[in-house]
Amino acid sequence: MTTPPSLLSLTIHSAILNLSSISDLSFLPDHIVLHLFLETLKAGKLNERVLKLFVASGKDEVLSLIGEFKIQQIVTPVLPTIHIKDNEVDIVIGAFHSDLTSFMNEWRPVFTRFHLIIVKDPELKEDLEIPDGFDLDVYTLQDINRIVGTSNSIKFSGYSCRYFGYLVSRKKYVISVDDDCVPAKDDKGLLIDIVEQHLLNLSTPATPFFFNTLYDPFRKGADFVRGYPFSLRSGVACSLSCGLWLNLADYDAPTQALKPSLRNTRIVDAVLTIPVGAMLPVSGINIAFDREVVGPALCPALRLAGEGKFRWETMEDIWCGLCVKVTCDHLKLGVKSGLPYVWRNERGNAIESLKKEWEGVKLMEEVVPFFQTLRLPEAAVTADACFLEIAKVVREQLGRSNPMFARVAEAMVEWVEIWKKVGSGPLPDDN
Amino acid sequence: MTTPPSLLSLTIHSAILNLSSISDLSFLPDHIVLHLFLETLKAGKLNERVLKLFVASGKDEVLSLIGEFKIQQIVTPVLPTIHIKDNEVDIVIGAFHSDLTSFMNEWRPVFTRFHLIIVKDPELKEDLEIPDGFDLDVYTLQDINRIVGTSNSIKFSGYSCRYFGYLVSRKKYVISVDDDCVPAKDDKGLLIDIVEQHLLNLSTPATPFFFNTLYDPFRKGADFVRGYPFSLRSGVACSLSCGLWLNLADYDAPTQALKPSLRNTRIVDAVLTIPVGAMLPVSGINIAFDREVVGPALCPALRLAGEGKFRWETMEDIWCGLCVKVTCDHLKLGVKSGLPYVWRNERGNAIESLKKEWEGVKLMEEVVPFFQTLRLPEAAVTADACFLEIAKVVREQLGRSNPMFARVAEAMVEWVEIWKKVGSGPLPDDN
Repeated sequence: MTTPPSLLSLTIHSAILNLSSISDLSFLPDHIVLHLFLETLKAGKLNERVLKLFVASGKDEVLSLIGEFKIQQIVTPVLPTIHIKDNEVDIVIGAFHSDLTSFMNEWRPVFTRFHLIIVKDPELKEDLEIPDGFDLDVYTLQDINRIVGTSNSIKFSGYSCRYFGYLVSRKKYVISVDDDCVPAKDDKGLLIDIVEQHLLNLSTPATPFFFNTLYDPFRKGADFVRGYPFSLRSGVACSLSCGLWLNLADYDAPTQALKPSLRNTRIVDAVLTIPVGAMLPVSGINIAFDREVVGPALCPALRLAGEGKFRWETMEDIWCGLCVKVTCDHLKLGVKSGLPYVWRNERGNAIESLKKEWEGVKLMEEVVPFFQTLRLPEAAVTADACFLEIAKVVREQLGRSNPMFARVAEAMVEWVEIWKKVGSGPLPDDN
Repeated sequence: MTTPPSLLSLTIHSAILNLSSISDLSFLPDHIVLHLFLETLKAGKLNERVLKLFVASGKDEVLSLIGEFKIQQIVTPVLPTIHIKDNEVDIVIGAFHSDLTSFMNEWRPVFTRFHLIIVKDPELKEDLEIPDGFDLDVYTLQDINRIVGTSNSIKFSGYSCRYFGYLVSRKKYVISVDDDCVPAKDDKGLLIDIVEQHLLNLSTPATPFFFNTLYDPFRKGADFVRGYPFSLRSGVACSLSCGLWLNLADYDAPTQALKPSLRNTRIVDAVLTIPVGAMLPVSGINIAFDREVVGPALCPALRLAGEGKFRWETMEDIWCGLCVKVTCDHLKLGVKSGLPYVWRNERGNAIESLKKEWEGVKLMEEVVPFFQTLRLPEAAVTADACFLEIAKVVREQLGRSNPMFARVAEAMVEWVEIWKKVGSGPLPDDN
């Protein structure tokens, strides 16, 4: 004759079967946690996670049992990687050419899993040609006018149209690639998946506070080298990933005009964190970022008077990158550069562009020292607050001597307003 | 009947034949320079250098002629590279093993052109075995005692023996490689010439004030990317080149113990300048430096109490690297990291070393923030002055809580004295 099971033993039994869904034991009476621990042991259910659960309960008797049994926590060196789901990603493409057929087909193996936002350059007259088989939304001038209205300082024409995509995305991560780029191939001839690499860059920590000579320590096969402080090894979140370019690299018009045959053929198989305080020329050709965290700091604020439709005639991404880097440095976030590469096709006549591009070249002489010495107030704890602080100093310092910078500051302020209004929540309905 | 040539025409004729040895024309009367210019043109001797000579003369008539003839100076984009001669280089090897036969033979194709300084670890009992066919000087404990005498704070045993080689070198450049490293092979299976690559790193400018996303802009096939300020493109002199390691990388004992099978197999085909203000863990395994400029800042000042004969049991190079980086940042000099790679062979038992190595690991937590915030006075304009300033602050700040750092500061001060006494001029004669 067997005694019927007690309510306690039934509860314990049930708890052991459901250990995986229990996240806290501390609120239970000590003797029940002890009982549960012993039964868990008997049932062979003590694994690493469950052990942590019991340790975290803080129950003295359980802790001393763990000690007496010499049960040790296995410290598995786990990469502190976050997992990004496909539906947390938007790929934004600014369309400067009406026929996107070949561009889209080349990217098909990489893009089909993701939602795409295609923003048609408002100055492009022809209808877009986009092949079937993608999950996408297309935005045109009509949508821009409907959603943002007419803005005095923000223009979404040319390369700036992509920023409208950043605005209407509702995803945590945005990947952005120019429509003159196709997938590059690695040394083995395999197609480089830029999405996978960008997401890897964003989902593993950045290490801006000490340089690791073997580059990204979170890549497979790498680690921190001797002398790297252990307290800095957990790193910080990475908010911006800047990819590179094979074939036609992102040179300015003077460099391209001087060395017309210069092509980038070297794949440097590395990702690195740009150290805190160091500025870099972020190119908008091939980037990814954490929209939730730094989205408001990516804005088409700087528009050159003679801006054209070739990358080397624009500076809006360089300006934007300096704003984001200063913001990330201030917020203790990381910026990475390196992999992935895209293959960039030929476009434009650099010598023709020289007539316009010198303006941007000259601007950098003033802009770089400004950003190198810019320090933000501690009260700024979000990207939009940082961005507004930058706008303020731009107006006060750079804007005094050059009215263009006063306009840039104005655009930055307006951008934050637009972002707050349009950057989250439901978008205005289609009419 | 011909008139005999005038003295002037003879002189002009002779001058044209010797244009290559003329470096100044400005002291000559205007009409003679004009005459010389026209004759040079007729003789077809006007090349770029000669044109510059005439332009530099500042003679109005010559300058207007150049203008009228529409003679243009060809602005060839020349890499601002300095040329390093073989006899400006010493290769310093600290000998921790008595039998250097295989080490030397492996390096033979690379080393034979250069003068080698081999410093025998004073604690090594056996005689050195060195194969023939090299131009080298060997230094032993006897030489150390003769040249430096007995020092209270500087010890040249273990890895520190190489610093004696830095001291007695009389060359502008020093390359230093550990005796557990052999030449690595590149992707094509070709032996990597570390000397060539290190000298390339040191002879081309560094760019610490803005990050170039395509890495070293002075490498073949690379350049500055769009947005890089033109005023920063000439860069600064590079004073330290830090190479990397294939196979066994320079991990610390905890990392190597935790991941015993971790090997570095990835060649990252890049050299980059570490940005100003960013600190890095310089490893002494494979480095090169401008001895004339930063030599006095490379010193075996930090010796761990339990220091051993394995790389991961030492920190002297890490400390040294932080001193050099702060010095270079202050003096507006560059530090590069990346290529060349060496192949590092297995040595030692990381788990055994853990007993000693933790001391160094803990030290870094204090040392890194110290160097990150260290600023040197403007009056310090040489590496030795910078190094003495660092020693002062080390004693005042770090030495207060930890007597080990007081000893480090003392060693640094003594090192500069030794360097001044022994680091240049004739060495004391052999007895």
